[in-house]
Amino acid sequence: METREISKAVVKRLPRYYRYLGELLGEGVERISSNDLSERMQVTASQIRQDLNNFGGFGQQGYGYNVKYLYTEIGKILGLDKTYHMIIIGAGHLGQALANYVKFEKRGFRIIGIFDNNPEIRGHLVRGIEIRMMEDLDAFLKENKIDIATLTLPKAAAEEIALRLVNGGVKAIWNFAHTDLHLPGDVMVENVHLSESLMQLSYNITRRDLDK
Amino acid sequence: METREISKAVVKRLPRYYRYLGELLGEGVERISSNDLSERMQVTASQIRQDLNNFGGFGQQGYGYNVKYLYTEIGKILGLDKTYHMIIIGAGHLGQALANYVKFEKRGFRIIGIFDNNPEIRGHLVRGIEIRMMEDLDAFLKENKIDIATLTLPKAAAEEIALRLVNGGVKAIWNFAHTDLHLPGDVMVENVHLSESLMQLSYNITRRDLDK
Repeated sequence: METREISKAVVKRLPRYYRYLGELLGEGVERISSNDLSERMQVTASQIRQDLNNFGGFGQQGYGYNVKYLYTEIGKILGLDKTYHMIIIGAGHLGQALANYVKFEKRGFRIIGIFDNNPEIRGHLVRGIEIRMMEDLDAFLKENKIDIATLTLPKAAAEEIALRLVNGGVKAIWNFAHTDLHLPGDVMVENVHLSESLMQLSYNITRRDLDK
Repeated sequence: METREISKAVVKRLPRYYRYLGELLGEGVERISSNDLSERMQVTASQIRQDLNNFGGFGQQGYGYNVKYLYTEIGKILGLDKTYHMIIIGAGHLGQALANYVKFEKRGFRIIGIFDNNPEIRGHLVRGIEIRMMEDLDAFLKENKIDIATLTLPKAAAEEIALRLVNGGVKAIWNFAHTDLHLPGDVMVENVHLSESLMQLSYNITRRDLDK
């Protein structure tokens, strides 16, 4: 695999290519031109060629892209050919909703623990995964290599818990708490700030009403 | 309020300014310089000045920003001075988790209905909000002006339901279904594709392991 750096903007677009290619595969399509892909994805063909040229060797002039090859290669680039051990911190509604997503499991994201500090739900199972208490987190991290920790807890607790996770060896955090985490050097954080996404809609609604 | 167009990139950053300003307000801070805000938000001061200059009249040279004024104005720009009626389509785990978010309510996003097609949960209440059946959706849309519909349902059903919502007068869709919706002209769609966010982490983990 190429190891040269791909721009962050392209990386952000890769999952969407991956999704469309997966759908094409499901429909039995073997080859697709950048023009046809362009029409389907509503992105310009030149954008597609530019994005996919990043990896080299995918497109053949006048022949189109090999769907399966491209799907597999993008999957590898996205790291979807591997398995990740995930835990969820915060077994509230959102934490449990994420634990119930079988789709993540299918993509290789295996949830192996859920933690909370509410003793009333200690030992409860969510899709077969046990809810453990926060006091058992450090020991759990010693015994299990965790690739990704998902934070679905109140923002006031998020940074402290994140630091505890990092001290326990966790290097990647999927953060749903509505705060920015300040963590040491090489820890990766991916934020999902739902209320900020909702504000894009209220902005656009307001905008449209002003334009009327 | 200014009605000139603000770039999409700036609009995407506004909720984060709004959050930090809200925190400053909570701490009793009345004025803040772009340099101090820069340090806090870990964005360059020139970026901050550039972003906030979009609205004109916020910053006073050598005097800093008036936190409360800026907070209020950005809130207005984001449309957070108004109330929105929201419904949720799909009362699965994620739909119920979103319905349970009191924070949305506080920001003016009022959830007034949840719809599903599972008769077993008909009439159940989620935070006091009744789960209704999909067959009652069209009548509900006739009787209630809905500003935003949230889609937390399987992707196969998403586009068809979205069109039904649009026919019923809904103009803004918060889409959690993992598919792109193709809808008529002026309907606004804001996508939250959780698995694509997770793939940013698996990409970065893979990248880091390659670089070792």
